[in-house]
Amino acid sequence: MSGAALLRRITEIGVAVRDLEQATALLVDLFGGEAGDVQQVERYGMRFRMVRLGKVDFELMEPVSDSGVIADFLDARGEGLHHVAFAVGDVDEAVRALGEKGVQFVAERPEEIALDVVDFAGRPFSEELRFAFSHPKSLLGVLFEFIEYPPGYATP
Amino acid sequence: MSGAALLRRITEIGVAVRDLEQATALLVDLFGGEAGDVQQVERYGMRFRMVRLGKVDFELMEPVSDSGVIADFLDARGEGLHHVAFAVGDVDEAVRALGEKGVQFVAERPEEIALDVVDFAGRPFSEELRFAFSHPKSLLGVLFEFIEYPPGYATP
Repeated sequence: MSGAALLRRITEIGVAVRDLEQATALLVDLFGGEAGDVQQVERYGMRFRMVRLGKVDFELMEPVSDSGVIADFLDARGEGLHHVAFAVGDVDEAVRALGEKGVQFVAERPEEIALDVVDFAGRPFSEELRFAFSHPKSLLGVLFEFIEYPPGYATP
Repeated sequence: MSGAALLRRITEIGVAVRDLEQATALLVDLFGGEAGDVQQVERYGMRFRMVRLGKVDFELMEPVSDSGVIADFLDARGEGLHHVAFAVGDVDEAVRALGEKGVQFVAERPEEIALDVVDFAGRPFSEELRFAFSHPKSLLGVLFEFIEYPPGYATP
């Protein structure tokens, strides 16, 4: 895969927040964003919700316990930008190609998650998708997420 | 203006970096991004360049002195995500409408800058554009930029 073919569109911007309901209400009030359902991810010790703003999903993430990736982030840096996610055609290939160039990833192999969201054509979507996070140390301090959506998920 | 009409597309993601040339080379190598020309902004004590990745510009920003917004950011947090910029139709109206709802802005009124860039239709663009940054304290710790592009600038 050539680098130029790797990244398609930004699909989400992750934001670590202390209070998911307040954060949602603020964005909806200010920008009229559409808020999705709340989902909990036990392995990350967090719950999240997508708020769609101007053709991108803001993933608002709130810790549900005192430990976990979002709790740690808030302790270290406070609320704010957490990650940027791009759609890729093939996440295994992305991890392989970037790995060959020295990029390190947070997990050894791509992970899977079942999301209950709405795609960018407004269609409900609850299939599994596969994703990988590269390590910020490899990439300018930015936490990049690479998401392979199943066919049928409309990106922006 | 209704909130829903405020944000159009994300046009840029700002990233604070220590070495603009290295950062550019890394992104171009990994993702095949197209790199623009380097421009210096004296009032911010920084120079920057856009690297286009997957229909969004990564604005790589490097300090050119020991003080200034990017130098301060790097001192406090290290390299990483700095801001998210959205195209808006009318930046004065955006500032007014958000201000009415309690959002604070970094500067008292929208600023102007002449950019020498390429729009998302690939056309050279060197007109002035107007922009405003809301204060992260008002908005979940996220530094939002609202950019009013002149007519003729194609957004993604």
